[in-house]
Amino acid sequence: MKILFIGDIVGSIGRDALEDYLPRLKRKYQPDVIIANGENAAAGRGITKRIYDDLLFMGVDVITMGNHTWDQKEIFDFIDEADYLIRPANFSKEAPGKGEITITKNGKTLTVMNLHGRVFLPPHDCPFEMVDYMVEEAKKNSPYIFVDFHAEATSEKIAFGWHLDGRASVVVGTHTHVQTADNRILPGGTAYITDVGMTGPYDGVLGMDKESVLYKFKTNLPARFEVPKRGRAIISGYFVELNEQGKAVHQERIYINEDTPFQN
Amino acid sequence: MKILFIGDIVGSIGRDALEDYLPRLKRKYQPDVIIANGENAAAGRGITKRIYDDLLFMGVDVITMGNHTWDQKEIFDFIDEADYLIRPANFSKEAPGKGEITITKNGKTLTVMNLHGRVFLPPHDCPFEMVDYMVEEAKKNSPYIFVDFHAEATSEKIAFGWHLDGRASVVVGTHTHVQTADNRILPGGTAYITDVGMTGPYDGVLGMDKESVLYKFKTNLPARFEVPKRGRAIISGYFVELNEQGKAVHQERIYINEDTPFQN
Amino acid sequence: MKILFIGDIVGSIGRDALEDYLPRLKRKYQPDVIIANGENAAAGRGITKRIYDDLLFMGVDVITMGNHTWDQKEIFDFIDEADYLIRPANFSKEAPGKGEITITKNGKTLTVMNLHGRVFLPPHDCPFEMVDYMVEEAKKNSPYIFVDFHAEATSEKIAFGWHLDGRASVVVGTHTHVQTADNRILPGGTAYITDVGMTGPYDGVLGMDKESVLYKFKTNLPARFEVPKRGRAIISGYFVELNEQGKAVHQERIYINEDTPFQN
Amino acid sequence: MKILFIGDIVGSIGRDALEDYLPRLKRKYQPDVIIANGENAAAGRGITKRIYDDLLFMGVDVITMGNHTWDQKEIFDFIDEADYLIRPANFSKEAPGKGEITITKNGKTLTVMNLHGRVFLPPHDCPFEMVDYMVEEAKKNSPYIFVDFHAEATSEKIAFGWHLDGRASVVVGTHTHVQTADNRILPGGTAYITDVGMTGPYDGVLGMDKESVLYKFKTNLPARFEVPKRGRAIISGYFVELNEQGKAVHQERIYINEDTPFQN
Ligand SMILES: [Fe+2]
Ligand SMILES: [Fe+2]
Ligand SMILES: [Fe+2]
Ligand SMILES: [Fe+2]
Ligand SMILES: [Fe+2]
Ligand SMILES: [Fe+2]
Ligand SMILES: [Fe+2]
Ligand SMILES: [Fe+2]
Repeated sequence: MKILFIGDIVGSIGRDALEDYLPRLKRKYQPDVIIANGENAAAGRGITKRIYDDLLFMGVDVITMGNHTWDQKEIFDFIDEADYLIRPANFSKEAPGKGEITITKNGKTLTVMNLHGRVFLPPHDCPFEMVDYMVEEAKKNSPYIFVDFHAEATSEKIAFGWHLDGRASVVVGTHTHVQTADNRILPGGTAYITDVGMTGPYDGVLGMDKESVLYKFKTNLPARFEVPKRGRAIISGYFVELNEQGKAVHQERIYINEDTPFQN
Repeated sequence: MKILFIGDIVGSIGRDALEDYLPRLKRKYQPDVIIANGENAAAGRGITKRIYDDLLFMGVDVITMGNHTWDQKEIFDFIDEADYLIRPANFSKEAPGKGEITITKNGKTLTVMNLHGRVFLPPHDCPFEMVDYMVEEAKKNSPYIFVDFHAEATSEKIAFGWHLDGRASVVVGTHTHVQTADNRILPGGTAYITDVGMTGPYDGVLGMDKESVLYKFKTNLPARFEVPKRGRAIISGYFVELNEQGKAVHQERIYINEDTPFQN
Repeated sequence: MKILFIGDIVGSIGRDALEDYLPRLKRKYQPDVIIANGENAAAGRGITKRIYDDLLFMGVDVITMGNHTWDQKEIFDFIDEADYLIRPANFSKEAPGKGEITITKNGKTLTVMNLHGRVFLPPHDCPFEMVDYMVEEAKKNSPYIFVDFHAEATSEKIAFGWHLDGRASVVVGTHTHVQTADNRILPGGTAYITDVGMTGPYDGVLGMDKESVLYKFKTNLPARFEVPKRGRAIISGYFVELNEQGKAVHQERIYINEDTPFQN
Repeated sequence: MKILFIGDIVGSIGRDALEDYLPRLKRKYQPDVIIANGENAAAGRGITKRIYDDLLFMGVDVITMGNHTWDQKEIFDFIDEADYLIRPANFSKEAPGKGEITITKNGKTLTVMNLHGRVFLPPHDCPFEMVDYMVEEAKKNSPYIFVDFHAEATSEKIAFGWHLDGRASVVVGTHTHVQTADNRILPGGTAYITDVGMTGPYDGVLGMDKESVLYKFKTNLPARFEVPKRGRAIISGYFVELNEQGKAVHQERIYINEDTPFQN
């Protein structure tokens, strides 16, 4: 099974860049499943129904989320019908939506899970404990398990990777919007990367206009962070190939921008 | 001017790996100056006089530090005589040691600065404000300026890079112990990478034994984190070449381990 | 010199309660100076020009602020003309407004200072270092010095009290919206209380409607916190009497609500 | 039922002061049950078997804990036999010990619960959700329920009080080591105080020697915090009387030190 993952899509620059490059990425990698983190798709904050539909139309099979899940109020109206959107499973039991999904593509069944870290972040339920249960259940259906762990601290993400090594097929980190270079196959066969990075503006700060972020850091005065509508884009992704036992046999980072252009 | 930077050296595995590879790295990159972050060199926590001497003997010209600066008590005894060791400049005025150093190698003069971030970290003096003054002063001597910004959050580090773009020759991030893949030359000519990553154990969590870190995350019970004495190593570095105006003309990441071995 | 301080005024319930009780408090305590923290006066978030004028009209001499200083955008339009409003002195040098004021009432001159803590809060400049300089300067004019230290952690506030013991006449904490019972005169003659508490709704959470706060704690889902417009009020204050050397000779807490009514 | 609660006992000064005053407090209040928070009893950090035994010998019926539960290594050896010691119930399922206890004194049965907050603190399991279940179970035995909520933020503690109003008999906050003046009986009949405060050194910072704490705040350099062995003491407590339905009919703060001496 071949899986293509796209890191946090930020604003229209990110969506447009994905639309532009996805055909080429499909041609190059021939993925069975395409997963994308959409927590910043709507101008940097959450996702709308229209954008959700657009991403599926482009060919994305599953959309994962993170701390920005609830930023757009309309999410509460459509999340229960958004079959292919998942949000962190360790959110409150009161939260609408779901934290995992099992899909079948090209005759292969994959469970995609989304969990949230807790270091420097709100006190969600324990992701280490919850994922144990989720993985055990999912294994009954299929050996293919993909986990998007949305977290800040490198320590928590690396620990999560080791925690799942040999049990999940793929563990990717998201949230910091900067791709890490530590992608590898762990000894137990789990493909791992601390953070896939973002898909959006190339010349800002995590996708936001850099002037307002700099103003905030320099003055601690209120600043309105906006995602620019124009400018150069970056696409960050991760590609993994799994064998029939659900172990990773190949993985590579995808990092496309003017400095490091797409190569066939 | 050619500069080789080595990311946070962790414990004896890190020191031994550096000793092993430094001759090869020197041969390949022919650096004028070698800088290394040594804040975790002594079993993961700070640096001792003996290790400081050893690193200089290996060929390191300047050692930078971070939040672990004071972990070894003996630092207070030797820091004022350790001419080639700098600690974050925006530490308290009461702190011993210094935050920058100007050295001349092969007839070229370079100022190396060390500053500390504040997001998810203690409230040091403002690094954005302080570095402005430091850069202005350093420019009077030489166009070559290297900055090690020791910080956690990707937002603060990227903002710091933009803040110095066109004014510093190189801005590297350290502290997260995971190398990022976003190295580039910013439009103003500053070579930038969000984090260089660490030099130490390859199979732990930030260099620490993974079992104790996992136990801590799973139970919130006290755990003693140790740096293993044996095991596979990783070397993380960054190489930059500057023109006579102090602008970066070439930069590349260095990332050596069993999965991605050293290449001549 | 007699000083009456009123803790964080929250919304219209707080302003109305103050208007109602201030005449009685004046009669009882005969203060030379009345100081009030106004950072939550406008519906819980910042202060407007109209409310600033209203508070002065009621008899407040100096208004102090805190982390909510900039919540109302119009503050940027009037702060430079608001002679009797101060905001934390250790905010950025770029921030408009001022951090202290010296006023003369009934022939006695008092300097009022406002500083901000840093534990669990943004990384402002060091309040311990800054207040040293401020106090030294103010002492040249008058022995009467009043400090509103707006901070979260009890440790930082108590340390600040000890830091100024014998140098400031009064150190009050604000920000937690809960009055502490530890008011005392420190050995050096400084009247001290860790937090004065708030002046606003009695039956909410820090002045906010309790249902939405509880919903947030129980679900981590987004919630809009509102200050109720109706309901029972609480008034929290602190009264201090100073001798001619600027030492406190008497101090008492003021805490008025239905359970502990005002007493003449 | 009459309950006397003693706030965080800090070091030998705290233990000695309690031993000194407990007979007088018993005489004055005639409590059926005495509960004390012991998380700082051993030199400020945790509790030992000997101190546990001493406190029971003095007449304490139940000892509650907090974030310092595990500071003394020997706790792991005796916690499972320490029948009258409870630690926060929302600690990890892997943690030894228990989070509640039901005792019968003078023919009346009381359940004492200990829970931990999460704001500015590690991500324990949700205390709001857990306490719902615990209260429901305890109600089957007896209407008398006492809760020690060990937490930092005033918002979380007040919310917890409202959450349990009418369901628990008493909710006290601990951890900040400063007594609050907001004690009251909430509309549903629950006696509530945001923080009871500490029992230990009167002239330090949260019980620690003030010089080292001040040094730390002023320099951000490492400092060793010690609980002084000599000096003036403070005793902080809370007394509640419940009717047969488990509702509070009377409550008062206890705050004893040289400035506010014990009164019969
Ligand atoms: Fe995120
Ligand atoms: Fe994101
Ligand atoms: Fe570090
Ligand atoms: Fe480090
Ligand atoms: Fe505040
Ligand atoms: Fe406030
Ligand atoms: Fe405590
Ligand atoms: Fe505590």
